[in-house]
Amino acid sequence: MAAEIICVGTELLLGDIVNTNAQFLALELASLGIPHYFQTVVGDNIDRLCSAIEIASGRADILIFTGGLGPTPDDLTHDAIGAFFKSPLVEYPEIVADITTKFARIDRPMTPSNLKQALLPGGASILPNPSGTAPGIIWQPRPGLSLLTFPGVPSEMRKMWRETAVTYLKSLGWGSNIIYSRLMRFYGIGESALAAKVTHLFDSSNPTVAPYAGMGEVRLRVSAYASSQTQAVSLIEPVAQEIISIAGLDYFGSDDDSLASIVSTLLLERGETLSVAESCTGGGLGQMLTDMPGSSAYFKGGVIAYDNSVKASLLGVDSSALELHGAVSETVASQMARGVRDRLGTDWGVSITGIAGPGGGTETKPVGLVYIGLANPQGEVKSFEYRFSSYRDRLTIRSLSALSALDRLRRYLLEG
Amino acid sequence: MAAEIICVGTELLLGDIVNTNAQFLALELASLGIPHYFQTVVGDNIDRLCSAIEIASGRADILIFTGGLGPTPDDLTHDAIGAFFKSPLVEYPEIVADITTKFARIDRPMTPSNLKQALLPGGASILPNPSGTAPGIIWQPRPGLSLLTFPGVPSEMRKMWRETAVTYLKSLGWGSNIIYSRLMRFYGIGESALAAKVTHLFDSSNPTVAPYAGMGEVRLRVSAYASSQTQAVSLIEPVAQEIISIAGLDYFGSDDDSLASIVSTLLLERGETLSVAESCTGGGLGQMLTDMPGSSAYFKGGVIAYDNSVKASLLGVDSSALELHGAVSETVASQMARGVRDRLGTDWGVSITGIAGPGGGTETKPVGLVYIGLANPQGEVKSFEYRFSSYRDRLTIRSLSALSALDRLRRYLLEG
Repeated sequence: MAAEIICVGTELLLGDIVNTNAQFLALELASLGIPHYFQTVVGDNIDRLCSAIEIASGRADILIFTGGLGPTPDDLTHDAIGAFFKSPLVEYPEIVADITTKFARIDRPMTPSNLKQALLPGGASILPNPSGTAPGIIWQPRPGLSLLTFPGVPSEMRKMWRETAVTYLKSLGWGSNIIYSRLMRFYGIGESALAAKVTHLFDSSNPTVAPYAGMGEVRLRVSAYASSQTQAVSLIEPVAQEIISIAGLDYFGSDDDSLASIVSTLLLERGETLSVAESCTGGGLGQMLTDMPGSSAYFKGGVIAYDNSVKASLLGVDSSALELHGAVSETVASQMARGVRDRLGTDWGVSITGIAGPGGGTETKPVGLVYIGLANPQGEVKSFEYRFSSYRDRLTIRSLSALSALDRLRRYLLEG
Repeated sequence: MAAEIICVGTELLLGDIVNTNAQFLALELASLGIPHYFQTVVGDNIDRLCSAIEIASGRADILIFTGGLGPTPDDLTHDAIGAFFKSPLVEYPEIVADITTKFARIDRPMTPSNLKQALLPGGASILPNPSGTAPGIIWQPRPGLSLLTFPGVPSEMRKMWRETAVTYLKSLGWGSNIIYSRLMRFYGIGESALAAKVTHLFDSSNPTVAPYAGMGEVRLRVSAYASSQTQAVSLIEPVAQEIISIAGLDYFGSDDDSLASIVSTLLLERGETLSVAESCTGGGLGQMLTDMPGSSAYFKGGVIAYDNSVKASLLGVDSSALELHGAVSETVASQMARGVRDRLGTDWGVSITGIAGPGGGTETKPVGLVYIGLANPQGEVKSFEYRFSSYRDRLTIRSLSALSALDRLRRYLLEG
């Protein structure tokens, strides 16, 4: 008994996109305890699609397709499935109604080609797509073989997987033994330094512990094989606690936590508010803070002080400080943080000023030099210097700057 | 004649890593004009590896393997190749010497398992690995079939590909014909509506034309098969021009262009400056504008007016307008755009105010309702209403809001 993933799309064969859908589905199959031994990528070609279906259906019981469900003539996944299992496509009136409603709602004209998405192999059940117009199918074309199809758009595929496919697979008896993981997140420590501290845990077999590097953060995946999530958690918990006690403040959260969500929780607990003053990040810190619903409870807004004139006019930074120390300096970072806190009337003010590159660096102030300022509810101001490697690119330096500002605020909120 | 990619590694099947190697190789094959119709991912299991080799060698002439070359017992790629083509592994003394030297250089003890990497199928040539200890092979186990193996570590694989594999593939006659593409980008039109307008081009065989949907934008890839980039461009150019004349202003750029880069070019040409006032996007528009190096030449900064108090204090929005029309209204969008333009002293001001959800929607002002304001150099203000579907998630509505603001400014700069 095994599942197999078939990703359909010439854009994958041309290298236009990286196959993140395969990774998502692989993680999901593992969490349901469903073995999975092969993945195939195939282009928008009906003969090659049929050949892929023939091979995969000879070695697996569950075939999971992504891609090829769109409205254009090169979207052929359902055509191929219908052809291979000799079940011609038929129009599903409930899909026609759904597509018509969705187009009316967004006030865009529906074209005849959109109705192609209402054609499914006869006998297949609809796998509803709440956020797009292309539904998938769940179908047993012969006893013991299940097919599930999803669009290639990752957000639609993931929602359909979580809302419908998981329940179906559990109804087939899967998920009774599961692999359950906790992804532990760390900031302010490198992968090898963290690995050296917890190296004795890497030999553990249940749960297993494995390190990964992310953007600025490091992650440890702690995975247990168990008959239930409760049992898995009881295996994971002592190991996680040991890791947290070793890592201290470098550990910031698990799973869906982010530095922004942790800062949000801490501010909400204290009933305090925050504003930001951004130079080199240009709004990226504000965006991270407002990615989460409900952020208006503690985030009031900020100033994008990209030009020095804005640092002076909207934040009250001294023109003498700008001349004497330059815009990228401890002094200006501190004045920006205090200025935005005072003018927006918040408890906390956070500022970022730095050189994101690729131009603008000098010998004394190289690309990657960033100052972060923090103004606390008592009006005290601190600033912190970061020197990100100048071989990093502009987007990375900007992301690391915003993440480091959140991390600095998190540590300040936790230990003063 | 075609190549096929086989990625080996249980970590891919568990979803621990995303398969960036497949994307890199896909792009490289396209640039050499080598057709490629299937990719397979298979775990560290010798029987399944042999089965994957059997299937792939029956439909392709060049098999490219990544992964499974390491020193541990679960690294089985060369074992499987040797077994399938009945050529037992033999120890290559030059590899033993190379591994010994590399371990001496990094002052780490060599273990017996490292010598496993010196065992290759007899008759295979070494594909040198300058940056790691695991060499690959280049081998024709039978006439007309070439195998190339690479380690899974992306940096090592890429270096080996560029330094050795490309030369080998060119010696087989590849690379004299190339596939060269232009990715054309559109905003403000749906995939099916655009496809309906250019449907007559989808039958073209050289260049081919294929549509893709992205975040808010739609793309057409125009790909030519030719003996040189110059010849490819001469095939692509007339088709691209026809598409541009059909699409009008819905076409905004090609390849690496983005809405932000096009707006940047237009403002630089006119020597004009821009500021932004953001509510629901929280800084996302400023971030898009400053993602590009050199944006300080036209972008001065802005105000993140998340809370109504900031709309009033830093942008001068009337409290009566906020009360009467609400923060999400044409009037407030206009006042925000004018306010940021006036206070930052820029030529243009762009504002965004809307309901990104998931909460905060009402019957008259649902989630997805967004107003974009534009203040032009003459101080005139316009505002535009967008109704993104409320079934879209918060991050999508925020991205679409920022992209639509850039698109609106682009159209205004182009046609007034």
